[in-house]
Amino acid sequence: MSMAASPAPRRLGVGLVQMQMSEDGAANRDKALRMTREAAGRGAEVVCLPELFGSRYFCQAEDADCFALAESVPGPTTEAFAELAAELRIAVVVSVFERRAAGLYHNTAAVVDRERGYVGKYRKMHIPDDPHYYEKYYFTPGDLGFRSFATEKANLGVLVCWDQWYPEAARLTALQGAEILFYPTAIGWHPAEKAGLGDAQHEAWELTQRAHAVANGCFVVAVNRTGFEPGPPGAEGIEFWGRSFIAAPDGSVLCRAPTDSEAVLVETLELGRIEEQRQGWPFLRDRRIDAYGAMSNRFDDS
Amino acid sequence: MSMAASPAPRRLGVGLVQMQMSEDGAANRDKALRMTREAAGRGAEVVCLPELFGSRYFCQAEDADCFALAESVPGPTTEAFAELAAELRIAVVVSVFERRAAGLYHNTAAVVDRERGYVGKYRKMHIPDDPHYYEKYYFTPGDLGFRSFATEKANLGVLVCWDQWYPEAARLTALQGAEILFYPTAIGWHPAEKAGLGDAQHEAWELTQRAHAVANGCFVVAVNRTGFEPGPPGAEGIEFWGRSFIAAPDGSVLCRAPTDSEAVLVETLELGRIEEQRQGWPFLRDRRIDAYGAMSNRFDDS
Repeated sequence: MSMAASPAPRRLGVGLVQMQMSEDGAANRDKALRMTREAAGRGAEVVCLPELFGSRYFCQAEDADCFALAESVPGPTTEAFAELAAELRIAVVVSVFERRAAGLYHNTAAVVDRERGYVGKYRKMHIPDDPHYYEKYYFTPGDLGFRSFATEKANLGVLVCWDQWYPEAARLTALQGAEILFYPTAIGWHPAEKAGLGDAQHEAWELTQRAHAVANGCFVVAVNRTGFEPGPPGAEGIEFWGRSFIAAPDGSVLCRAPTDSEAVLVETLELGRIEEQRQGWPFLRDRRIDAYGAMSNRFDDS
Repeated sequence: MSMAASPAPRRLGVGLVQMQMSEDGAANRDKALRMTREAAGRGAEVVCLPELFGSRYFCQAEDADCFALAESVPGPTTEAFAELAAELRIAVVVSVFERRAAGLYHNTAAVVDRERGYVGKYRKMHIPDDPHYYEKYYFTPGDLGFRSFATEKANLGVLVCWDQWYPEAARLTALQGAEILFYPTAIGWHPAEKAGLGDAQHEAWELTQRAHAVANGCFVVAVNRTGFEPGPPGAEGIEFWGRSFIAAPDGSVLCRAPTDSEAVLVETLELGRIEEQRQGWPFLRDRRIDAYGAMSNRFDDS
């Protein structure tokens, strides 16, 4: 049996920016631009920023004044990053609080690329609502479906935070050809829960996303914010747990940022591992697409 | 705000039987009955056996003689376990190589219960085919869909081995009301791969199933065989890796069997943790059932 010649290895430098946000939006954006530049300087060709890095995590309270933080997409933030992407010859996954129309806002992540500038956007499909994560107040659920964006270097799947708990979201994005699933994220501990539940919560979060890498045979990049952000009166605030990471298609963790400090991580991904993994464990081959119709049911109690 | 009175705690003793199989089918079945009895003696009310415990893992080769191992379901094996279940007042998840008709065989798991005897069966939906796991030769893919079985004590979701890599299978079974997902399993290392890939393979296997527990807020019980089984001429055999385990709805591992020896594990599950977990992380509430239609596509390259 003769074997085909192997193609040249496809390597991609991926950078993640784990940031702490202040109340000063201009300072947040400047820091995000600076840390993106640092990632590119260390070899990143694609950089991902955390969820809603332009501001503190305002969803700790329901406050109509916070809608003033929203902007159009494309808009000022994607333009600033598109300019930087062109200069540095990279692509960037940019999370933005999107104002679509009066009274219509989304939690959006855009892709900007060195060649094309603004490439497209994904609007967060799964919107949480838990005490002090009052996102249903602010964000209309996405209506663009699940999306992967072909860029010059790789096919980039973009999801946002709460989506990371949904195997459906990972699968549907992978089926669009995503080689890497990016999850800009804002997750942390309520201080009163941390001692009792903190480790279990973090472990569930990380293993769930590593499992998406395994199930789909692709890379996963989760990018969280870090640091304590005070809450509104009567609330205790949120301690964002950092620990941004990159997982390989076998679910192994390639790198992980610390809990308590900002970090720029850059990792060279061997994209050939995707096909190798999927040949070894050919899950996509055996999906029972004739039997998944009930995925569109809320519950099977009829 | 007045709080409703809490219901009485629902506790369920769950046992798993990690076995090594010999070439003697009667001895395998006798051992399975004996170990099930041991589990019940230690408090198990539901017991799960490994995949195809009636024989060695014959799928290491394609051999038409092995079809002689198949039997009807219900049939002799389910009857033997139904009798034991009645005596011990338990339920049992029983994996059987099912002969449905001439030339039509399934990899099946039945539920037998103390009250009703044979309750029903699930036929493995996802069939693997990898070197020395030649299951597509033997097993017709299941045509009963994904199933959960209401028993007196709990709602038991039944899946089999390769299904454990599919988040769709876990989700669809949970949506039927399963409180526990049982995975009778036969997974191990090819000896030549163990040093290089063994740890990563095992870790991917365990974390994937723990992620099903998290995503669905239910318990997961994975029951593997243990021990080395020699392969056909020219093959090196399989070293089944044991490490059967039970995961809680937060993904934590409640108990784990060793790699190299048989084991009966019994764990008392607090079924109230399911609702508690799902209230804390309400993933089922936010599923985008309007946007999951493409789960029924093979790939989105149209």
